[in-house]
Amino acid sequence: MKVVAIFSGGMDSSTMLYQLLSQGHEVRAIGFDYGQRHAVELDAAKAISEHAGVAYETVDLRSLAPVIAGQSSQVNLDVEVPDGHYTEESMKATVVPNRNMIMLSVAVAHAISIEFDAIAYGAHAGDHTIYPDCRAEFVEAMKTVISLCDWKQVALLTPFVALSKSDIAKIGGELEVPFAMTWSCYKGGTTHCGTCGTCVERREAFELAQIKDPTRYL
Amino acid sequence: MKVVAIFSGGMDSSTMLYQLLSQGHEVRAIGFDYGQRHAVELDAAKAISEHAGVAYETVDLRSLAPVIAGQSSQVNLDVEVPDGHYTEESMKATVVPNRNMIMLSVAVAHAISIEFDAIAYGAHAGDHTIYPDCRAEFVEAMKTVISLCDWKQVALLTPFVALSKSDIAKIGGELEVPFAMTWSCYKGGTTHCGTCGTCVERREAFELAQIKDPTRYL
Repeated sequence: MKVVAIFSGGMDSSTMLYQLLSQGHEVRAIGFDYGQRHAVELDAAKAISEHAGVAYETVDLRSLAPVIAGQSSQVNLDVEVPDGHYTEESMKATVVPNRNMIMLSVAVAHAISIEFDAIAYGAHAGDHTIYPDCRAEFVEAMKTVISLCDWKQVALLTPFVALSKSDIAKIGGELEVPFAMTWSCYKGGTTHCGTCGTCVERREAFELAQIKDPTRYL
Repeated sequence: MKVVAIFSGGMDSSTMLYQLLSQGHEVRAIGFDYGQRHAVELDAAKAISEHAGVAYETVDLRSLAPVIAGQSSQVNLDVEVPDGHYTEESMKATVVPNRNMIMLSVAVAHAISIEFDAIAYGAHAGDHTIYPDCRAEFVEAMKTVISLCDWKQVALLTPFVALSKSDIAKIGGELEVPFAMTWSCYKGGTTHCGTCGTCVERREAFELAQIKDPTRYL
């Protein structure tokens, strides 16, 4: 198939990218700049795409930042990024309002526009307690609405929706994903902080998967 | 309720805006600049909002144009806008890939961000033969996915989904919508062409509703 992959430069979507390639799909990757604090992830997305030989482009949605920022620590720079375990209630501060539907809708439009068959995104089971738009029921509802939005059909692939992040790390390890190039931290620096929810989750995933963590933390 | 209204400056969304106000809702209007050929509609949206005393802003999505243009006459300026009746198969050239899902997803994000209760859009029954993302089944599926995209609930109001454009013209007439200020033409000029699908539909709606058409056509 021809697949547009939503690609953030993180562990999950990097593994998804490598898995799609290993399955023989033709892949184009798109990342989204919505004015996120952690926009450094887009440099990772670009570098990993080059490394994997995949066409990549950043969709510039920075103009959306003031429209959708609300009280999200990742777009509203006045709100502090919480430290702690990624399943804690406090992590809801990192939710960007309806971010995934926005990215999915643009990816679908792009797939229709360039006559691709499918889009893919790397939501996983570990996200579900904090991010409403990573839940399996959200994904199922998106599949339905995507099937109705155009006269042509675009499939929605979500290969990791029932997997944990350590499952993904294991798959990535087997596929030789260059994890050292991936970016997770939400803090907005250029070195992983090691203490925000996404850094804690990253460390734990490598540990549970028994894969050496190549990340340098502050 | 507090409602974010998706507002294009056309007859339908103008009538929707006036109806929401007449029902006592607090309304904010947003329009979308996605690089459309007929971006002059946004000037109408702004002027009508001022006239109605409603806060309005244009969401700048022009960076999406190259990503989603495909073969749509409304974004890909190499594709000609078809003349003729708005129900003709040729009018499918005017479909912008997944446009409504993109607008709805941003409107939902905005509503969550500013703590509004609902969003509204003016899809109507006459659109259904050409625009897949105006169909009642698309709208129903959007309601489901919107109910799942966030921990807070945002309602989707689509008051015209079962009405014809002439029904809307009648309602607008009763609500004293300033139809002369509204914009329909898809051709990209500054005077309504009178021959493209949306102009034909506009003329027909006024005629069927037995309302004097205040539009000057070329």
